[in-house]
Amino acid sequence: MATQAQAAPQPAVTYADILEAAQRIAGRIERTPTHHSRPLSRATGLDLWVKYENQHETGAFKERGALNRVLQLKPDEKARGVIAASAGNHAQALAHHAAAQGVPAVIVMPKATPNVKVEQTRARGAEIVLEGETFDDAFAHAMKLREARNLVFVHPFNDAQIIAGQGTAAIEMLEDAPDLDTLVIPIGGGGLMAGMAIAAKAIKPSISIIGVEAAMYPSFHAEGRGEKVTAHGQTIAEGIAVKQIGPLTYALARDLVEDIILVDEPTFERAIALYISAEKTVAEGAGAAALAAVLTAPERFKGRKTGLVLSGGNIDTRLLASVLERSMVREGRIAILRFVGDDRPGILATVTRIIGDQGGNIIQVAHHRMTLDAPAKGVEFDIEIETRDGAHTREIIAALKAAGYDARSV
Amino acid sequence: MATQAQAAPQPAVTYADILEAAQRIAGRIERTPTHHSRPLSRATGLDLWVKYENQHETGAFKERGALNRVLQLKPDEKARGVIAASAGNHAQALAHHAAAQGVPAVIVMPKATPNVKVEQTRARGAEIVLEGETFDDAFAHAMKLREARNLVFVHPFNDAQIIAGQGTAAIEMLEDAPDLDTLVIPIGGGGLMAGMAIAAKAIKPSISIIGVEAAMYPSFHAEGRGEKVTAHGQTIAEGIAVKQIGPLTYALARDLVEDIILVDEPTFERAIALYISAEKTVAEGAGAAALAAVLTAPERFKGRKTGLVLSGGNIDTRLLASVLERSMVREGRIAILRFVGDDRPGILATVTRIIGDQGGNIIQVAHHRMTLDAPAKGVEFDIEIETRDGAHTREIIAALKAAGYDARSV
Repeated sequence: MATQAQAAPQPAVTYADILEAAQRIAGRIERTPTHHSRPLSRATGLDLWVKYENQHETGAFKERGALNRVLQLKPDEKARGVIAASAGNHAQALAHHAAAQGVPAVIVMPKATPNVKVEQTRARGAEIVLEGETFDDAFAHAMKLREARNLVFVHPFNDAQIIAGQGTAAIEMLEDAPDLDTLVIPIGGGGLMAGMAIAAKAIKPSISIIGVEAAMYPSFHAEGRGEKVTAHGQTIAEGIAVKQIGPLTYALARDLVEDIILVDEPTFERAIALYISAEKTVAEGAGAAALAAVLTAPERFKGRKTGLVLSGGNIDTRLLASVLERSMVREGRIAILRFVGDDRPGILATVTRIIGDQGGNIIQVAHHRMTLDAPAKGVEFDIEIETRDGAHTREIIAALKAAGYDARSV
Repeated sequence: MATQAQAAPQPAVTYADILEAAQRIAGRIERTPTHHSRPLSRATGLDLWVKYENQHETGAFKERGALNRVLQLKPDEKARGVIAASAGNHAQALAHHAAAQGVPAVIVMPKATPNVKVEQTRARGAEIVLEGETFDDAFAHAMKLREARNLVFVHPFNDAQIIAGQGTAAIEMLEDAPDLDTLVIPIGGGGLMAGMAIAAKAIKPSISIIGVEAAMYPSFHAEGRGEKVTAHGQTIAEGIAVKQIGPLTYALARDLVEDIILVDEPTFERAIALYISAEKTVAEGAGAAALAAVLTAPERFKGRKTGLVLSGGNIDTRLLASVLERSMVREGRIAILRFVGDDRPGILATVTRIIGDQGGNIIQVAHHRMTLDAPAKGVEFDIEIETRDGAHTREIIAALKAAGYDARSV
């Protein structure tokens, strides 16, 4: 979650700037592929292409802008070093490319940042400063350090060189898939969107540009309607959870974006799980936003060659495991069966044998003797089972009922 | 798990056959990429390249052989149709490419096959026959059906056309990365190994070919030592859990394979988790075998340009979630803290506040009043927590001890 951008006047970004950025960063960064995805096209009934920005060394598109920025530092700036406030992809990207160019980098992160993120960024050669409880605290501290140590602050999005760098993704996408007629691009602070929209519209004026925001953080969408932004809450797409769109990115992108699709949390989860199961690739929440937009409004993309920007793959291991398990609950492959039985020896053996004979796999059993739903001499059982699918779960429930156990799925 | 191959005499497979197969299947199958992997190279200190055979439409390399076989059916064979016994990647591959060529396909699967696999294969146009309790039963039934319905049986590996098709992966790999000096290739029945070894040695005689088997199913390894194979058990790499290497594949590959590395179950898990976290890609157990071999014996690959065949990505969702969670336990990010306390009101509030103040996230709490480890008026608590890492877990334990709760991680 980034804080409000500082609205210093900055030059516009042109297609020429993005072409120059592409030449500047070439060979120093992965040339990520764009492929037609038969599995996703089959799963959605659409014609979908994917730009694999999760294949960068640090797992996200942020390297494009960070590298373009670092390569344009003046000699005295290179000697002084750069600073950023980020616990995310921008931090890793800047640390990595500053180190590669011999530029000192300071990254300020909130104190509670997971050690794994701290160590990953430190391993790329950055000095890590842990300060503050929130991201805003860390940001404020970075501003102080910039002054105190005379460092160059690198904003994650509201910066012409960052925007020009991110725009290079569109050049590559249309090189690899020139027939695309729609691009679907995640919007956080708007750097990726502004850069890609400028480049794509210059290359192919007929192309449609669709933006995607988390429904919890609809900052571009609200700005476009002149509404006050109400952005808050824990979204799985924390990489685009930006409370305020960048003034520069918004001014550049506003007239190029055909529409914004807002994505709710369950649809982010579905998109992450679909990338894993169908495309065999890992997307973080924000990285899955474009696919989530297509799942939200598939009719908008019928008959169109649609390019999805999979912007990053840095999802926490536990979060990914949880998303996958929740997808199984949605599909009926994990269920909790609840029933009330007598509190007598043998009942659990009988019931678990029925479930086992039906091919259900018991994960966990809980006995509740205190629930008032059960009679004083009864006990409520919650049996968590894994099944082949929803139909199999219903077969198991039917078998329990046939044996006199009035089970239901809760 | 495939049954023993039938040892009918078959012609040898030559590089010319594999070149012909490559021309035959071109344009009807994904041309999967081979990339240098900076993240995996960094994680292992080696120079690793990955062939993404998980990018096929059905998620695994098996399409190469199946398509090469289907395209060489005679007109009367095409009209009669094909049959296979498989609940795995061979089934999907054959169903898909038979349908694409207008050839009827019958796939026999054991009765307990998960519905999702049945439906996936049926959706590709195959007739599914569910028969038998085990894979061997299904195989026997497929043989009966072949006779009764005059179908063409397509063996998953011990077949010259299948082997030639699988070999095309080596041509592509050495086109994309001609400097590779070692290839690491999973061995199940040996079709992929035989085909790739023939092609790679023909293109580049100096190349080293290393095979990988699950330690539970060391059929190629045992055959090479003249040992009796003792292959059994539930491996996470079920795609290469073959009790008996194919006679044809073994005869072809034997002199081309420099060495076999056997991989144990925890290392398969580590490799799957590393593909997800570092490479952002999904490997099934067998698909992660080559990376697991490199993790097993990294010294063998020092200073070598090593190509890993990521042979497939069809891993069950629940299994993947479980592998990811277990990787967190290994890293100390999930721990169970056990301690004995008085059975009095408020103790849980005190303890959980200490854990919360330290930034630990409580997942589950269990009270054991009956354990004889605890005094009669005491209670044993098991508190499952999620932490930032192992160091954080130790900090939380120290804080509990400082407050008088003698907690330990169990």
